[in-house]
Amino acid sequence: MRLPPEGRTARASPDRYRTVSGSSNRFSMTALPQRCSASGCRPRRRSANWSNASTVCPRPPGLPDASASDRPVGAAETAASRKAGPRPGVPLKTRDRILEASLQLFNEGGLAVVSTNRIATEVAMSPGNLYYHFKNKERIVDSLVRRFELRAEPIAASLPTVRSVDDLWLSLHLMIEVIHAFRFVFRDADFLIREYPGARVRVRKFTGSALEATRLMCANLAACNVLEAAPEARDAIAFQIVFTAACGFMFSKLLPSGDIAAAADPGRAAYQILTLLTPYLDADSRHYILYLRSKYRT
Amino acid sequence: MRLPPEGRTARASPDRYRTVSGSSNRFSMTALPQRCSASGCRPRRRSANWSNASTVCPRPPGLPDASASDRPVGAAETAASRKAGPRPGVPLKTRDRILEASLQLFNEGGLAVVSTNRIATEVAMSPGNLYYHFKNKERIVDSLVRRFELRAEPIAASLPTVRSVDDLWLSLHLMIEVIHAFRFVFRDADFLIREYPGARVRVRKFTGSALEATRLMCANLAACNVLEAAPEARDAIAFQIVFTAACGFMFSKLLPSGDIAAAADPGRAAYQILTLLTPYLDADSRHYILYLRSKYRT
Repeated sequence: MRLPPEGRTARASPDRYRTVSGSSNRFSMTALPQRCSASGCRPRRRSANWSNASTVCPRPPGLPDASASDRPVGAAETAASRKAGPRPGVPLKTRDRILEASLQLFNEGGLAVVSTNRIATEVAMSPGNLYYHFKNKERIVDSLVRRFELRAEPIAASLPTVRSVDDLWLSLHLMIEVIHAFRFVFRDADFLIREYPGARVRVRKFTGSALEATRLMCANLAACNVLEAAPEARDAIAFQIVFTAACGFMFSKLLPSGDIAAAADPGRAAYQILTLLTPYLDADSRHYILYLRSKYRT
Repeated sequence: MRLPPEGRTARASPDRYRTVSGSSNRFSMTALPQRCSASGCRPRRRSANWSNASTVCPRPPGLPDASASDRPVGAAETAASRKAGPRPGVPLKTRDRILEASLQLFNEGGLAVVSTNRIATEVAMSPGNLYYHFKNKERIVDSLVRRFELRAEPIAASLPTVRSVDDLWLSLHLMIEVIHAFRFVFRDADFLIREYPGARVRVRKFTGSALEATRLMCANLAACNVLEAAPEARDAIAFQIVFTAACGFMFSKLLPSGDIAAAADPGRAAYQILTLLTPYLDADSRHYILYLRSKYRT
């Protein structure tokens, strides 16, 4: 994985990820050690050690800068985009306020039942004022899906450059975090795909490219002798990784109340994917993955 | 797995399953041999051979009789149920016609957008007549979820009795077939869970019991030395099996058009689950699973 120079000095650890997301509590991780005490958790193809974990924060190439974690959920990050999201400390523009409120309502209430009138009420404006900014609900959905793309595509694009399990683990967490922030896209997929043709095209294109990038990542990990799996098995693993990342939150809705909190946790999807990979990894990587897995509450 | 006497005479094979479902074409299997020619595919803990495969049709305990496959999709099977479905050759009662049409419309069009008026049009009756049979859409949904339970619960209940991979494969296929027949339950899960409290309780209860039964099945397979996995890994495998069976169809909606047909095929979910299990199986079972997997188009 092509990390910036400072990123090459530390292995991804739960501690290191804490500095990336700024929200480690959401990932169901138990109290984490500042240093790795597990035997066999030596950095592979890197010279540094875990003691840098809490200070170094590598990011996959193309990812937004670290300050992105301070931005409102779902906000776009690149200045290049016309739909650029709000910057930290700068009051939200009306358009951004509408999108923020819509995202929260869609995530919590469901895409099918949240109306533009409900959104207008949430942002304390008249339906006519809302109409001035977005002609209909479809425009809002399209804008939110574009924001999702802006966050998720760079992560997906970086997957083929992953060469070790720690980079894989980091990318997985970043991807699952973005999917969680825009979870209505996948939880209400059937409705979104049927009702919003523009969003349908974008979401399917993203899923296809994520699947292809994950396949390529698995092939490259196999070429590096990190993953030991035949091509057919690698394709199935790639499919299962994308499937688990995309649909994990939806499945949480189907579980008895007691299990919902655990399944809806983004960490659950990461844990499941690590478990999927474990038997295919070389001994060193497997040991490291088992250490990471032990940090999740099941 | 406690099979009826005649069921103990043959190993589950793609051919044998053909006689169970009566719809092997839907499972993306290539032209199947009448006998297994793969080396190492010897029956385990059984005395018979594959030559009986096309004539013997074992069923898990508690499953409806074989004639159930002739019944309309989604029809209930047990005489004990007040909601018993129509019998083969007997004209459908109005209530059954309504449920049949509703199931088809929900599966194809989506639960959120199909109204009772649309259903009434489909069965060529007035809304008032429909109201006589079902007071509202929620009653229809509840009845369909009960029919799903009647089909799926016996299969889930039989999972802890599974002792070999061929029984596992058979049960998986039966379960996925039922989920496919009632796919609106899982594809529109978010809407169903939110809008229909009665169905929510039933679906969550079913998912919870299926998860528990699958965990027990994995533990029993480990006790028989078929599955070689630590308890933590077994729980993750069980979770992934139920998740894949339940949400596979939903994920197909997210794929680019070219991949949708493959992912929506019930065989795809079975293939994925077999792949998940492969590295954890003992050598004999793994060989057999690889043979089964080779029968699916990927």
